[in-house]
Amino acid sequence: MFEDRNKKKTEISELGEFGLIEHLTKNIKIENTSTIKGVGDDAAVIDNKNKQTLVSSDFLIEGVDFDLTYTPLKHLGYKAAIINFSDIIAMNGIPQQLIVNIAFSNRFTLQAIDEIYKGIFLACEKYNVDLVGGDTSTSVTGLILSMTVIGSADKEKITYRNTAKENNIICVTGDLGAAYMGLLLLEREKSVFEANSDMQPDLEGNDYILERFLKPEARLDIIETFKTLDILPTSMIDISDGLASEIIHLCKASDVGCNLYEEKIPIDQTAYNASMEYKINPTTSALNGGGDYEILFTIKQKDYEMLKHNPNITFIGYITEKASGINLITNGGGQVPITAQGWGKDK
Amino acid sequence: MFEDRNKKKTEISELGEFGLIEHLTKNIKIENTSTIKGVGDDAAVIDNKNKQTLVSSDFLIEGVDFDLTYTPLKHLGYKAAIINFSDIIAMNGIPQQLIVNIAFSNRFTLQAIDEIYKGIFLACEKYNVDLVGGDTSTSVTGLILSMTVIGSADKEKITYRNTAKENNIICVTGDLGAAYMGLLLLEREKSVFEANSDMQPDLEGNDYILERFLKPEARLDIIETFKTLDILPTSMIDISDGLASEIIHLCKASDVGCNLYEEKIPIDQTAYNASMEYKINPTTSALNGGGDYEILFTIKQKDYEMLKHNPNITFIGYITEKASGINLITNGGGQVPITAQGWGKDK
Repeated sequence: MFEDRNKKKTEISELGEFGLIEHLTKNIKIENTSTIKGVGDDAAVIDNKNKQTLVSSDFLIEGVDFDLTYTPLKHLGYKAAIINFSDIIAMNGIPQQLIVNIAFSNRFTLQAIDEIYKGIFLACEKYNVDLVGGDTSTSVTGLILSMTVIGSADKEKITYRNTAKENNIICVTGDLGAAYMGLLLLEREKSVFEANSDMQPDLEGNDYILERFLKPEARLDIIETFKTLDILPTSMIDISDGLASEIIHLCKASDVGCNLYEEKIPIDQTAYNASMEYKINPTTSALNGGGDYEILFTIKQKDYEMLKHNPNITFIGYITEKASGINLITNGGGQVPITAQGWGKDK
Repeated sequence: MFEDRNKKKTEISELGEFGLIEHLTKNIKIENTSTIKGVGDDAAVIDNKNKQTLVSSDFLIEGVDFDLTYTPLKHLGYKAAIINFSDIIAMNGIPQQLIVNIAFSNRFTLQAIDEIYKGIFLACEKYNVDLVGGDTSTSVTGLILSMTVIGSADKEKITYRNTAKENNIICVTGDLGAAYMGLLLLEREKSVFEANSDMQPDLEGNDYILERFLKPEARLDIIETFKTLDILPTSMIDISDGLASEIIHLCKASDVGCNLYEEKIPIDQTAYNASMEYKINPTTSALNGGGDYEILFTIKQKDYEMLKHNPNITFIGYITEKASGINLITNGGGQVPITAQGWGKDK
């Protein structure tokens, strides 16, 4: 899992809890003026002026949310932070502070924990977020990460998921389904390796889908686009569990229906090819795969003109009245209700 | 673990993750005007006006931080929330919002999770805190709780641990060592029970120490006292790991020394008796026991007059220059350096 397997390994117990926290946090630099006090007291202190504070939290548990046999620790730390940043972005806010709770069993060395933190720090640096606190603990089995992110937004700009209106245009950033393909590829190579440990992983030509799974990014750029163009989306949610699940959340919360067009759903060619190879309809991968951390949002029709040439945004359908239901208009022209547990899984 | 063992047990899997979150959060009432949006979107939204935001987070892991053989689930939920509230109070702030991440294995039924939440809700109600979000997950083994609390304070009232000054008086709320005695009692009864399961636990007359361990309170009252009397402590920290560990944190952060008087350390009679029964010097229990969640703070000498008759506060020593060291003045008049790993453990 490490580049240099001969590096000295340090047992965490040599440091003690306070020594470990000191070790992990000693290089933190504060970047946000709103961070008054970070690590080192009972609580972090955050200044707020005229903004509103956004807070979100996520759990990542070894064996449930990630598999260390194919997840490099640095990527894990990076991804865990990104998942949290994405939740703040999905409210049209800017992530600013991060709190990391980490628990691990004695099979983890100091170098292993450092790798995770390297990933966390990298994400913090890239997204200009301050690590301001957290707790370390021992776990009976495996690694557990629990992160809380704090962000801010102007009161009138915060975008909820329950405010989509009939005739709004449904938009999505980037492309969908690739992260799931990356996961399937890694799962397949793991099975091959378990069956025959002499086999080397065959990951060639799959850089894109692997990166989408192992090192996703949060769409901070879209928040900047909205700001530059002075566009306020009518509703917004991030795609963590797959497009199907998220559009259902958004429609139910907003008490509306929708028509999504299968032909409009953005799927990268590499992901499309991988999906075909796995004999899964690529639309199904995009709808149910999850893990892409793209942003699903709705806009007023009048804002379409300003966004229509934006290469990062695809227009995939429109909001209807609730009674019409939550539908996919298939390439063949048919209409299929979208369900979260996987429309088309038996397709 | 439950009062009525014949209650119907529901498997969590019948609900699914979203059903579970809906079930757990359906009765939440928002109490703080600063809580703009709680559970139900990508992030909670908190309004801030002219206050500063305080944030703290803690991990509680089964088999490490608690033992379910003698911890009722409702108490566990209550205590987990209290531990977090205490961190905000220790900054001279008011806890206002709570985020709960919970993971559990399939040996936990819905009723078990409900019990934990009953305790969390009870604590939130008592301390006027809003539960505003969280994540649920599956754990491979046991129960894991990760909580983040958000509070607020006036900018000029926030009290850090690194601002104690020479000649300040060292104060502590309540009494110390009782929670540790409660833990020792429960550990002893567990051993007795494991050796002979016909034995009934002998907990009589120990209500106080058991309650101190199982259902501690956070000292919100002291924050109100400071406000009423217009007193600003010069430094403050909560006692989670024991007086010795906390006074060392406070002195090191403030770059000062101290003299603590053994005879002044407040120890409840029940805890004193229990400590003698366990053949542990009661001062050692108070210094190293931990888990009392009392508040350790320092004040200017001019503020002593206003607090001297307060029954909730004991004056246990004073701050000295750094070179004098961190010392205990023993009942015999001797001077012993205080160490975190337990001065007097071999006494």
